[in-house]
Amino acid sequence: MAFSERVDRLKSSLIREILAAAQRPDVMSFAGGLPAESMLPKVDWAPMPTGLGQYGMSEGEPALREAIAVQARALGIDCSASQVLIVSGSQQTLDLASKLFIDRGTEVLLEAPTYLAALQAFQLFGAECLAVAQEDDGPSLAALRERLERHRPAFAYLIPTFQNPSAVRYSEYKRDAVAALLDEFGVTLIEDEPYRELVFDEGSARPIVSRLQKASWIYTGTVSKTLLPGLRVGYLIATPDLFPYLLRLKQSADLHTNRIGQWQALQWLGSEQYSTHLDALRCFYRQGRDAMQSALQLHFSDLADWQSPQGGLFFWLRLKKPVDTRALLDQALAQNVVFMPGEPFFVDPDQNLGYLRLNFSHVAPDRLAEGVRRLAGVIRNASMVEAA
Amino acid sequence: MAFSERVDRLKSSLIREILAAAQRPDVMSFAGGLPAESMLPKVDWAPMPTGLGQYGMSEGEPALREAIAVQARALGIDCSASQVLIVSGSQQTLDLASKLFIDRGTEVLLEAPTYLAALQAFQLFGAECLAVAQEDDGPSLAALRERLERHRPAFAYLIPTFQNPSAVRYSEYKRDAVAALLDEFGVTLIEDEPYRELVFDEGSARPIVSRLQKASWIYTGTVSKTLLPGLRVGYLIATPDLFPYLLRLKQSADLHTNRIGQWQALQWLGSEQYSTHLDALRCFYRQGRDAMQSALQLHFSDLADWQSPQGGLFFWLRLKKPVDTRALLDQALAQNVVFMPGEPFFVDPDQNLGYLRLNFSHVAPDRLAEGVRRLAGVIRNASMVEAA
Repeated sequence: MAFSERVDRLKSSLIREILAAAQRPDVMSFAGGLPAESMLPKVDWAPMPTGLGQYGMSEGEPALREAIAVQARALGIDCSASQVLIVSGSQQTLDLASKLFIDRGTEVLLEAPTYLAALQAFQLFGAECLAVAQEDDGPSLAALRERLERHRPAFAYLIPTFQNPSAVRYSEYKRDAVAALLDEFGVTLIEDEPYRELVFDEGSARPIVSRLQKASWIYTGTVSKTLLPGLRVGYLIATPDLFPYLLRLKQSADLHTNRIGQWQALQWLGSEQYSTHLDALRCFYRQGRDAMQSALQLHFSDLADWQSPQGGLFFWLRLKKPVDTRALLDQALAQNVVFMPGEPFFVDPDQNLGYLRLNFSHVAPDRLAEGVRRLAGVIRNASMVEAA
Repeated sequence: MAFSERVDRLKSSLIREILAAAQRPDVMSFAGGLPAESMLPKVDWAPMPTGLGQYGMSEGEPALREAIAVQARALGIDCSASQVLIVSGSQQTLDLASKLFIDRGTEVLLEAPTYLAALQAFQLFGAECLAVAQEDDGPSLAALRERLERHRPAFAYLIPTFQNPSAVRYSEYKRDAVAALLDEFGVTLIEDEPYRELVFDEGSARPIVSRLQKASWIYTGTVSKTLLPGLRVGYLIATPDLFPYLLRLKQSADLHTNRIGQWQALQWLGSEQYSTHLDALRCFYRQGRDAMQSALQLHFSDLADWQSPQGGLFFWLRLKKPVDTRALLDQALAQNVVFMPGEPFFVDPDQNLGYLRLNFSHVAPDRLAEGVRRLAGVIRNASMVEAA
């Protein structure tokens, strides 16, 4: 069978295997990134008009595009509804952007670590990925400037607010500095913000795209983390030089996003009901974050360093004695606990050993401490074996 | 801005412009392919479980995959649910297959004419498209053999049942012969069947994939033509050598298809309610077909040749005096009538002048004759200008 050369770059199914193992009812999973089942809002479908069953526009529903533009302008993003494209979950933005920009060997710039599925999507299309080290308050500016001076990336893909996996939130200073650098070098920004609304503590958040003066940009968001991921409704907003291409690529990919989910999203966006739901969600996840922080302080203080996340769904641990955490999965599973190894979130996994991503939204708070204790045991054991 | 070289192959927006014009309330449109608004079934969302709002599996909902496998086996396709992948409308199958098979210059084999959006998707990925002339009962077997002897296409993309645009239904004989040829040359078949259930007259229909002995295949279908296109739910069934790659490409494209639409599709597939609805749909479209046939006989007998379609949503007209029908759009619009030029459905449009695709499901039967009369006037006028 002669496949495309692209297929050689389809990644192994490690993540799929981990998530499959996480489905076992006896397993405590810190691996996934699923919203808490108990916090999925009850939605009403009864008032939906039958006509929404018909084919729709590739751009998306006009009223939803308008609602998203209103929300974006409130964040400081200068845009109109004509720049909004509804997508089938924000993963599709990565697919469309890949098609728009990436040939084999095209350079793109990413944070290290970065969102795994973005890395895989860009690599599938043949991108040469340049990594910029993530610090506690955003990317290393020196490293970013050095990359921009020596390379001509087609775009920079950044997740400035509660990044998956590192949970980093860029500071106000770094948001401005990154915008200035991208303007200086004329590099397009793709800013990915799935976790913006899952915020637990005050802090800087105005999007970087709103700080750009010259560079082109794509801003992408979703209702998956705050409403219902099963709707598969996300959106992108793009500068007018990019929009027409993204629209035609969207049409070629799947004609348009399902209108049922778009209609439901529209019932919520900007409503009082949504605002109440978001408050409840933040409160619920904050408790999970606090429970995880306590458990980690108890069991991991001698094993790892971490920042307590100000938003999002993940803790990111750096082991004091780095080991390849991928090799610990089987031992963890033997203890009925599963986590996400950090290595695959890097362009060069083997040069970045000793990170773990732990989700705190799935395991019930009363079992969470026990899971963390078992996981600490696995890692302590591995460190001792290593040392022996 | 440095885009991918793929973007140079994004096609012009002629079709988008035509369909936009068709939206004008005063325009009688034979251009689109939309199901009749009045025949969209009323659906019940009330019993849907809240849990379906959660993320789902990339493969699709297990119960829906099983229902589709049952249906496919009833058509003679030897398959299990594990070979079924739910997609976001069958347009996505074209995107996934393109990713799986097509590099720049990869040869693929198509009917002439073929489905426009398929042609565009394959060309976007850089395919070299080989065309095989469509005859009244399926492709020219001599031309097909000649192509297979001289080329090594990655796949053959065929629409054997009420093809959009030509409405051709392959005969029993040609279905067998095409299967034998693909087996002989070991060429993968992609069989696209959106219109299978919209059948007005008895005739052969067993899928070609069910007749293959050795060749790999992808069979793709949708609920868009029979239930609600706005759900964006389609499916593919693939041989086990292809399935794992398609699954990973699906995951990378949009994680999974919306579960809301999948749930609704499952309520209908195989039910008595669905069977009753399909009967009503066939009866309704048969009347449209008959009305269009009468109108064409009245106004087009001296202008064009056509077959009355046995299913699907389109008539395909060949003008007796071929002119570039793209050039007639403005004159037709001046008469408040719009049609789909046939040229873009060919790999080499300029070598295939003088075809029109007319949809009969959108314009109300009582206005249909008037629209056809006006269109005939435009063409008659153009032929006279040509002759003068």
